[in-house]
Amino acid sequence: MDVEKKYFSNISFRERAIFEGAISMAALFHQFIGTPINEKTAESLEIAISNSLQLQPAIEKVDVSINIDKIKQSNTEFNYVSLSGDMLNVRIHSKINDLIAIIRMEFIKELNYPLMYVEDIIGDE
Amino acid sequence: MDVEKKYFSNISFRERAIFEGAISMAALFHQFIGTPINEKTAESLEIAISNSLQLQPAIEKVDVSINIDKIKQSNTEFNYVSLSGDMLNVRIHSKINDLIAIIRMEFIKELNYPLMYVEDIIGDE
Amino acid sequence: MDVEKKYFSNISFRERAIFEGAISMAALFHQFIGTPINEKTAESLEIAISNSLQLQPAIEKVDVSINIDKIKQSNTEFNYVSLSGDMLNVRIHSKINDLIAIIRMEFIKELNYPLMYVEDIIGDE
Amino acid sequence: MDVEKKYFSNISFRERAIFEGAISMAALFHQFIGTPINEKTAESLEIAISNSLQLQPAIEKVDVSINIDKIKQSNTEFNYVSLSGDMLNVRIHSKINDLIAIIRMEFIKELNYPLMYVEDIIGDE
Repeated sequence: MDVEKKYFSNISFRERAIFEGAISMAALFHQFIGTPINEKTAESLEIAISNSLQLQPAIEKVDVSINIDKIKQSNTEFNYVSLSGDMLNVRIHSKINDLIAIIRMEFIKELNYPLMYVEDIIGDE
Repeated sequence: MDVEKKYFSNISFRERAIFEGAISMAALFHQFIGTPINEKTAESLEIAISNSLQLQPAIEKVDVSINIDKIKQSNTEFNYVSLSGDMLNVRIHSKINDLIAIIRMEFIKELNYPLMYVEDIIGDE
Repeated sequence: MDVEKKYFSNISFRERAIFEGAISMAALFHQFIGTPINEKTAESLEIAISNSLQLQPAIEKVDVSINIDKIKQSNTEFNYVSLSGDMLNVRIHSKINDLIAIIRMEFIKELNYPLMYVEDIIGDE
Repeated sequence: MDVEKKYFSNISFRERAIFEGAISMAALFHQFIGTPINEKTAESLEIAISNSLQLQPAIEKVDVSINIDKIKQSNTEFNYVSLSGDMLNVRIHSKINDLIAIIRMEFIKELNYPLMYVEDIIGDE
């Protein structure tokens, strides 16, 4: 089966790059929110998150940064917290042909919300 | 803050509709995969999934259909299964201005994969 | 296969009731934390959570109460939040023979932690 | 607050060890099921899972083994799969005083089910 032709010929490369990057960003959020974490385990979780999301279609790079200060601020009696959206800063590069979409998630204090948006698109159709 | 202007003026309405629909589809998958389910509880889970995803930006409608036959096929000694991607058939309508993107997820046997794609886009920029 | 004999004859009925209730409480937390929610969708999510967890071995009753005030307090620009541990108050009844364990999760402000504990055990070995 | 006295004095050390181990086992399952995985990323996910669960109360050791053969068997067009219960083999050691409960999860083919049970308890009250 020609998956590209059958399922993706109705959208442009640019739209496809946005589509795949958006999928991986939301996958990241809803898969890993709630994971027990503290400052000692943050790095291994960042690596596992990045490795797992890079497996998805079109994903070239996943930079995950977990905010250690926020972990410490929300610390509990048991010295760990549940990973939450305000601790995450993520950039995902998705590539279709020579076109790269950079999808970003960052916590915007003014919105009290971990906003996902298209930070940049590099290359042309 | 003008969120639209600040974060979304670099993409078209059509791209934004695709973006928001893709986010909600992946959110659905990674949030609810693994939920205990059988044929008696499928409907209440479909309703909760639909209600929760409709809260996300731009989402107008979420039609979730859980395949009861597949639940029965993968049944266990304990009369329930973990929700998996091959049981889901979903359509999400995301709307930006008068433009609606219909994002679809369905299990494609030939790919052994729950494929997410843009089924249709209704309206023009 | 006699599952009870093969896998559970090394623990008492009381221990087994505690074991099964603990499993379902943690399943609830890690499955549903992160779900988009607001005051209008809370009830359908409570129902779906309760129905799904009741499918697990030995679970008789699952009372889930999502704190609407906390939803409102953590509200965002987009009028919904991600379900988090501080919004949940849950009692799970697990029954083995005539013995019922009541497992509780509630957010304890002093610990800044959604504590899971055995609230009561009714009946004797 | 004396958490132990206030919330856990109604159960024995043995029961508490079983309780905490059961919580972490179910946390593991419902947090990580659905994660994209292939044979190259399995190890980093095992490490992150083990590190995160060891943060929970009483948890001493978490041995996670993801079955590479099953990953390959369920492979998709896109060279990765969603982590599912039949791929997991886990032992969690939870310790209260000098008493260690070994909680096990393994997929039992005859039951078509990833069974969680108490494999062993070492030490006395």
